[in-house]
Amino acid sequence: MTTGDLFVISAPSGAGKTTLLKRLFPSLNNIAFSVSHTTREPRPNEINGKDYYFVSDQEFSEMVEKDMFLEWAWVHNHRYGTSKKEVERLLSKGQDVILDIDVQGALNVKKKISSAVLIFILPPSIKELERRLRNRGTETEDEILLRLKNAKEEIKMVENYEFVVINDSLDEAVEGLKAIIISFRHRRSRVLSNTALCKSLGLLD
Amino acid sequence: MTTGDLFVISAPSGAGKTTLLKRLFPSLNNIAFSVSHTTREPRPNEINGKDYYFVSDQEFSEMVEKDMFLEWAWVHNHRYGTSKKEVERLLSKGQDVILDIDVQGALNVKKKISSAVLIFILPPSIKELERRLRNRGTETEDEILLRLKNAKEEIKMVENYEFVVINDSLDEAVEGLKAIIISFRHRRSRVLSNTALCKSLGLLD
Repeated sequence: MTTGDLFVISAPSGAGKTTLLKRLFPSLNNIAFSVSHTTREPRPNEINGKDYYFVSDQEFSEMVEKDMFLEWAWVHNHRYGTSKKEVERLLSKGQDVILDIDVQGALNVKKKISSAVLIFILPPSIKELERRLRNRGTETEDEILLRLKNAKEEIKMVENYEFVVINDSLDEAVEGLKAIIISFRHRRSRVLSNTALCKSLGLLD
Repeated sequence: MTTGDLFVISAPSGAGKTTLLKRLFPSLNNIAFSVSHTTREPRPNEINGKDYYFVSDQEFSEMVEKDMFLEWAWVHNHRYGTSKKEVERLLSKGQDVILDIDVQGALNVKKKISSAVLIFILPPSIKELERRLRNRGTETEDEILLRLKNAKEEIKMVENYEFVVINDSLDEAVEGLKAIIISFRHRRSRVLSNTALCKSLGLLD
């Protein structure tokens, strides 16, 4: 049976990753979003089990001790983690899985699953990133400055990513992200893992 | 300056490659079709310089002697070749280049240009391939049998290709082919070859 591919998507705060992913999902079938666990408080409109699993510090620590995370990391004084079991379950169903995680987490996943495809979303410029962060209006000035400082460091981590999508025009960014995912469905190894197809083409008896 | 990528597309006769490529081109910008040279006679509606450069046996031999081909091969008793100069000119302009060539030619190009991306178009089954060959009505029975025999051998060459597009639904096949090409535009090395972008992101002084 064909298994899906694992895509890890990261971006500096304000690059527009959340909007992009929201636009991506309805345009693709056979794709699943792995929901992360976090110890941070929900923002307004965020739903437990959909945006994140919001858990207590103690619950998170227990999952770490039981080695239940594919990766977990501190980001802005909170912990974020990806459940192994959840990802494996989705991939084995033949679904492509998207992990929306930070740079540290992406590198940790890549260490454990070398076939993971790392995609970095970038704003067209640092100036534009700052403008978007301020327009969002959800953070204090101190938080904005912290996020900008972190973003500049994070952008340098692009060297670890296989694909880069510049989020200038949202339509083009969605198309680019979608194309990367679809292209993996056409890799020879994945296409030829379909036994019935191979038989009808005379490649298997 | 960013250079384009070279895509080599092959298919057994009757897989629908020509129709697929005709549909692909209007949907992508910045893409060029490298026109091959051939010694075979033009089919009705084929235009010299657009579908192929139709040349005499003597002209073709002279180009071979002058090492002007990236690849050339015998197919069905005629010679087909790809001009080096033409491909290099298009790639250096930053265009993605598509070569529509047979299996032998594809392997020869890959030997000379290891970054070439090999894409194989396949019918959903051998039965469907035979049906399409007969429906085309441009070949004699002997020619059809020869093409089917060759196709079965060619299909085995799929092992040399990085990507496979099954041409069952034409729309999905066009989308798949397009996705492969667009995904390469998002490889990190290609995106970061844009110096102005790197400067605006603080990756270059």
